Amino acid sequence: MLSKNVVKYLNSLQLKKYRQEHGSFLVEGAKSVVELLASDFEIEMLVATDAFYKENTQKFDKQPFRVEIATPDELSRVGTLQTNDAALAVVKTKPNDFLYAEKQEYVLVLDDIRDPGNLGTIIRIADWYGITKIICSLTTTDWYNPKVIAVSKGSFTRVRGYYVELDMYLEKVRTTEQGTRIYGTFLEGKNIHQTTFAEAGYIVMGNESNGISPSVETFITQKITIPRFGGAESLNVGIAAAVVLDNWRRG
Amino acid sequence: MLSKNVVKYLNSLQLKKYRQEHGSFLVEGAKSVVELLASDFEIEMLVATDAFYKENTQKFDKQPFRVEIATPDELSRVGTLQTNDAALAVVKTKPNDFLYAEKQEYVLVLDDIRDPGNLGTIIRIADWYGITKIICSLTTTDWYNPKVIAVSKGSFTRVRGYYVELDMYLEKVRTTEQGTRIYGTFLEGKNIHQTTFAEAGYIVMGNESNGISPSVETFITQKITIPRFGGAESLNVGIAAAVVLDNWRRG
Repeated sequence: MLSKNVVKYLNSLQLKKYRQEHGSFLVEGAKSVVELLASDFEIEMLVATDAFYKENTQKFDKQPFRVEIATPDELSRVGTLQTNDAALAVVKTKPNDFLYAEKQEYVLVLDDIRDPGNLGTIIRIADWYGITKIICSLTTTDWYNPKVIAVSKGSFTRVRGYYVELDMYLEKVRTTEQGTRIYGTFLEGKNIHQTTFAEAGYIVMGNESNGISPSVETFITQKITIPRFGGAESLNVGIAAAVVLDNWRRG
Repeated sequence: MLSKNVVKYLNSLQLKKYRQEHGSFLVEGAKSVVELLASDFEIEMLVATDAFYKENTQKFDKQPFRVEIATPDELSRVGTLQTNDAALAVVKTKPNDFLYAEKQEYVLVLDDIRDPGNLGTIIRIADWYGITKIICSLTTTDWYNPKVIAVSKGSFTRVRGYYVELDMYLEKVRTTEQGTRIYGTFLEGKNIHQTTFAEAGYIVMGNESNGISPSVETFITQKITIPRFGGAESLNVGIAAAVVLDNWRRG
């Protein structure tokens, strides 16, 4: 049985304030925890059912961490998933290190993505299309939110995030990487089906309701658009990111 | 104030059983209700705040229906949205009419899509790419589920669904529309970036966990795949549908 203190600590990590205070976050469910064990993240504590623990013991050899055995009921109660009959890990967050697009690399830039489900989806899509760096505006939802981590389906172990004041960041890109293309989706942009993507660059995705903000817009060098053939007014930002990245990879 | 009977009726429509019994479903929120008022759906009852009612009265002229005025609090209590400060409508469902791909038309086929959020997303994407017909396996989640309707963002007014036993339906397509292409996404299919889509056809999307079922697979004439460039194991079915439709429209 989990102690009161452990339960209290796990519950506290559902809030950004306490994740920042402890430098720790939650990874929940069998698939995510198994991917985590194969990653370079530092695990602080593993809470697992007896069955999950026995099945995966050989994966724990690499690093020592505290292990607590719990029932599925307890796991569901201390975590955010409706059901969790496997495991939950407390993991150390990574430092907020500066990231930029190297030669022949594309980096995703998120201007004020508010919904954790959308951020998690975008991390998973980035991972599918081989993007490993995402720049997030300071207003973008917290990367370590349990919903973001769950929805990313383990992709959070392969994609890094960097939170920064976007105007400052893009100003730096503009001055130090002259000629770098910065793509952004707008209703009146160039049809992506007819866009040839440069060798390297940045792709900016905007806020769910308002799109790319006016100040960030001033840094966009290539306005692009996903052509519409029917009646829907818009696409969800995760969907739009996938379609843009697919067109980029198609070349 | 809403009467007890109205509250009870509205609540009952959250369940498929009662939607089928009454042949009615719920449309919630300002944007969806406004799109509904411009559509050919038959409205049975409108529950609106005083403000929404006054703002939209000229849109009600076309058809007579019962109107109930409610507070935002009441609206949120009788509906499924966390907050709703505008309106909610009770609408008659459409008959389950046979649908097929006409000349130069593409139709989407859903093999056991279980998640209402995914079905709603797919309806919205279909609408964006100009697809107006979706064939659903009998195991696919209910089209009139309030979550499906909400996530479709009004696209349910422009896209029709037809529920049918898929094996039987596809057998019929195979025998009556000889040579018709039936596309389906598989891990080992042909790269969609190198696929030339026929003039007309069907695109099958499979279940969230298991993909296209073995019996439906026997009807697929073109196995296609979305190429992967990174580490993610899979894409969400809504994302996959968008990428496939974008490649189809790109030609």
